Amino acid sequence: MARVVVALGGNALLRRGEPVRASTQRENIRRAAHSLAQLMAQGHQLVITHGNGPQVGLLALQGEAAGKAAFPLDVLGAETEGMIGYVLQRELDNAHAGPARFATLLTQVEVDPGDTAFRSPSKPVGPVYTEAEAGQLAAQRGWSVARDGSAWRRVVASPRPVRILEIEVIRLLVEQAVTVICTGGGGIPVARRADGTYVGVEAVIDKDHASGLLAAELNADALLMLTDVPAVYTGWGTPAQRALGEVTTRDLAAMAFAAGSMGPKVQAACDFVNRTGGLAGIGALEDACAILAHRSGTRVVPAPAT
Amino acid sequence: MARVVVALGGNALLRRGEPVRASTQRENIRRAAHSLAQLMAQGHQLVITHGNGPQVGLLALQGEAAGKAAFPLDVLGAETEGMIGYVLQRELDNAHAGPARFATLLTQVEVDPGDTAFRSPSKPVGPVYTEAEAGQLAAQRGWSVARDGSAWRRVVASPRPVRILEIEVIRLLVEQAVTVICTGGGGIPVARRADGTYVGVEAVIDKDHASGLLAAELNADALLMLTDVPAVYTGWGTPAQRALGEVTTRDLAAMAFAAGSMGPKVQAACDFVNRTGGLAGIGALEDACAILAHRSGTRVVPAPAT
Repeated sequence: MARVVVALGGNALLRRGEPVRASTQRENIRRAAHSLAQLMAQGHQLVITHGNGPQVGLLALQGEAAGKAAFPLDVLGAETEGMIGYVLQRELDNAHAGPARFATLLTQVEVDPGDTAFRSPSKPVGPVYTEAEAGQLAAQRGWSVARDGSAWRRVVASPRPVRILEIEVIRLLVEQAVTVICTGGGGIPVARRADGTYVGVEAVIDKDHASGLLAAELNADALLMLTDVPAVYTGWGTPAQRALGEVTTRDLAAMAFAAGSMGPKVQAACDFVNRTGGLAGIGALEDACAILAHRSGTRVVPAPAT
Repeated sequence: MARVVVALGGNALLRRGEPVRASTQRENIRRAAHSLAQLMAQGHQLVITHGNGPQVGLLALQGEAAGKAAFPLDVLGAETEGMIGYVLQRELDNAHAGPARFATLLTQVEVDPGDTAFRSPSKPVGPVYTEAEAGQLAAQRGWSVARDGSAWRRVVASPRPVRILEIEVIRLLVEQAVTVICTGGGGIPVARRADGTYVGVEAVIDKDHASGLLAAELNADALLMLTDVPAVYTGWGTPAQRALGEVTTRDLAAMAFAAGSMGPKVQAACDFVNRTGGLAGIGALEDACAILAHRSGTRVVPAPAT
């Protein structure tokens, strides 16, 4: 039995390009819940996080369509923690055999207003615009915008998570054997002001980095990042393409990965393993148990002392 | 020092007719947080619930405007628990002097599918329609619709809350001196199926009834229902209009109140007092401390034994 932080990727909850509909979302979350229930049946204690990219995009789009200024990203993030967290808890509770207590907790994550990410916003959010629309919105609302394929989109900062504000409460629940769903979408981004109070910020925190921080703070035995591909690959798209199985943080550090997809997962895995000596697994949703048993996916382990 | 369940009325969070904007919502919630912080400063242990009527309406409207079928009411309710709960926790944390731990917990509330409310849906939700539009939507989506003033709206069932699914976790947090925000919007309505699993239902649970159930289950010393009027009145709008101060459940039971506004508060107050022997207060947001000290608002107390 292990304490495991499981991060469900946006692609595990919604297939690429699939529209965000209540029914589709529920079916995909049910698939994820089935996999999580298998981990619970093996006696593992789970703390579950999830992505929210498509859902935040939908809510921003709906706000636009209704002709109102959209809610800020901290509030939209909180909405998605409610929406996804509820469906996930509901389906997991239904899928799990036997009694269990669940808690879905809103989670704020502190970021540093001095983070260099705020000087070069790079994470696309919300609907697509024409170049002219994007320019107008940038002027009107002070947004950063950037080309995304053939269209333009708003881009926001993706600063590093510094501190999980609710960590004590999460720890308390975990110690009482409650299965916790938290830190959804990487957490609601907030920043500390000079007077010691906190304020929401217009940013999106990378879910994998936030999950790694959570796992380290909880002294978890393992961090599982589940997505729609079976492993981390080197030489992706080249003849030398190869799935990584068991790999040390030192070996991983010598390889290069795409910034937008596997990069954050690999970085979060190395950070967690280096800090705790635990296991970080990356792989397919349905392989969760096999990854934890070192039989599938990519398993990042500590580098042996030299 | 007392354990107090505080129910913030929709009208305490958003003035009547005021649009749901992020800035307006935050300012009103800040006002509520100031009042709650005063209660905390007096040493009271708070469990906080809140309404969500205008916010659910906005989200339903946005879903319509975006040209998609709106998410079902259980999912919209979960979204509002995220949105309002986050802003409330953030502002209360900022307003409260000294250290405190907060938890905003998604809360499901079981309703009985056999509840007579499902046979006569009466609670208006979402946007207004013309009679023709309403008729078409009723045919297309199986909605119940009803006249609301000069317009038509969708109406849904408002069944009685039977059980709070997360009550054990809430109790655990309260016993560890965590200030809990939960059961927002009366809770996410779910029903038990024959196989023992639960499913979300298209309904809206009355926040005051759910708050009364929560207060009784937590064996709270007091249930405070805060709104935008200073007390419960008899003979409202007549020359005999009179604010009620200290009143017993027996005296209240002999009076009549409007079904849509004070009726549920009075009923929830009587249910809580009859079940626990505690104090139920109804009054203005800014009078919270004074109501608890029996100096303001309407205080419902047990009828003396005869």
